[in-house]
Amino acid sequence: MPTQSSQPATIASPAAEDVTRVAVSTVIFTLRRTDAADCPALALPLVRRTRDPYDDRWALPGGWLDITESLDAAAARTLGETTGLAPSYLEQLYAFGAVDRSPTRVVSIVYWALLRPDDASAGLRDQDGYDPENVAWFAVDDLPHLAFDHNEIIDYALWRLRNKVGYSRIAHGLLADEFTLADLREVYESILGRRLDPANFRRQVEGSGTLLPTDRFRTGNHRPARLYRYNHEVALADLGPLARRSPRRSPS
Amino acid sequence: MPTQSSQPATIASPAAEDVTRVAVSTVIFTLRRTDAADCPALALPLVRRTRDPYDDRWALPGGWLDITESLDAAAARTLGETTGLAPSYLEQLYAFGAVDRSPTRVVSIVYWALLRPDDASAGLRDQDGYDPENVAWFAVDDLPHLAFDHNEIIDYALWRLRNKVGYSRIAHGLLADEFTLADLREVYESILGRRLDPANFRRQVEGSGTLLPTDRFRTGNHRPARLYRYNHEVALADLGPLARRSPRRSPS
Repeated sequence: MPTQSSQPATIASPAAEDVTRVAVSTVIFTLRRTDAADCPALALPLVRRTRDPYDDRWALPGGWLDITESLDAAAARTLGETTGLAPSYLEQLYAFGAVDRSPTRVVSIVYWALLRPDDASAGLRDQDGYDPENVAWFAVDDLPHLAFDHNEIIDYALWRLRNKVGYSRIAHGLLADEFTLADLREVYESILGRRLDPANFRRQVEGSGTLLPTDRFRTGNHRPARLYRYNHEVALADLGPLARRSPRRSPS
Repeated sequence: MPTQSSQPATIASPAAEDVTRVAVSTVIFTLRRTDAADCPALALPLVRRTRDPYDDRWALPGGWLDITESLDAAAARTLGETTGLAPSYLEQLYAFGAVDRSPTRVVSIVYWALLRPDDASAGLRDQDGYDPENVAWFAVDDLPHLAFDHNEIIDYALWRLRNKVGYSRIAHGLLADEFTLADLREVYESILGRRLDPANFRRQVEGSGTLLPTDRFRTGNHRPARLYRYNHEVALADLGPLARRSPRRSPS
């Protein structure tokens, strides 16, 4: 409300129902191991709303686009403010703009990222004023009824993740730099929600050219397992227009 | 400007520089054969602007999002109003929101579609008030300097198209229902901008399981060529959240 104006505030500000506003939200996937399950499960952070609409419901981290910031910057800022998480790269997922998705008209540009378990576990507690009552990790197969259309947004993100894992090295975002084939298979199994045959899996990934064997082995209770790393010569399928352009030219 | 109000218009309307507005634009690709070239070239429709900013520059078809319509509906409406084209399906491509992409703050949700040459050639002239001075097809490798960041948007759409042609049956959108392998190879060559070896190409597509041979042949000056059609049992890689959901459940 412009306090410097002598005009009534209802005239000086456009009525909320006459304006389409732009928001950003983020879907951050990681793998979390619970005591009950031997296989890690896909999880994401949610934030409890403390005002209407949908007061007290859980929602995706996010907020309003500021007029002076890019969409990418708004996604990173609002994610940091609400969860303390700071992924090295956020990819744009989709713009959701159904007329009735919010009591007022809101177009939400949704971003997503994958976080390695180490980065994720540090995240939430690092933020100033961390409030475990109002920000928490949820397993994707055990979500509450969320605010707005956020359950649908997460369904779509999961569908894209499951689709994408087949033709890109997207699983890399959930793994350390070096990993065994069993580690990699576990990531695929968690994303796809089903077991994969170890011998078939090994044949497929070794034939794909996306992995490079190292000279190192992981030892422990089982027989030594060779460590692999991703072949960075193989291009990612899609990182959006910014990631695509940056190696070719500097920002003008 | 609200003429019914006695308040000064500058107070009653939010200043343009204080509001983020949402627009939609569409990139419609088709193949067009020119006399000079034996291979068809990728082309798209552009609309000449008749007001500032960028008065007289060519731009992608599009317009403002109306507060009562979805993003998909706005893309279809503005495309129809400016070009007369009505593709059966528009896919969301990306939201462009750089702060300086327009003199005022505008987030553009960009859609794209592929049109078969027959549908495309009918399109532009079908519209009421068709004005060939202000709407025309342009070859993608011979574009003028466009309004806003529209050259960059088209670069991104081309990159996505070239990327996608490798792992989906996206070329289908540019072909008739039945086609020869030479027709299909020509589409790939036009999108990728390079010649493909006919024998290798035949081996790859026949091995992919995406094509079904028919009992029909095209005859003419050359030896008869078998006609194929796409196998609709093979899922598309990505048609966005709406296309994904519709076969599974009806809208609630």
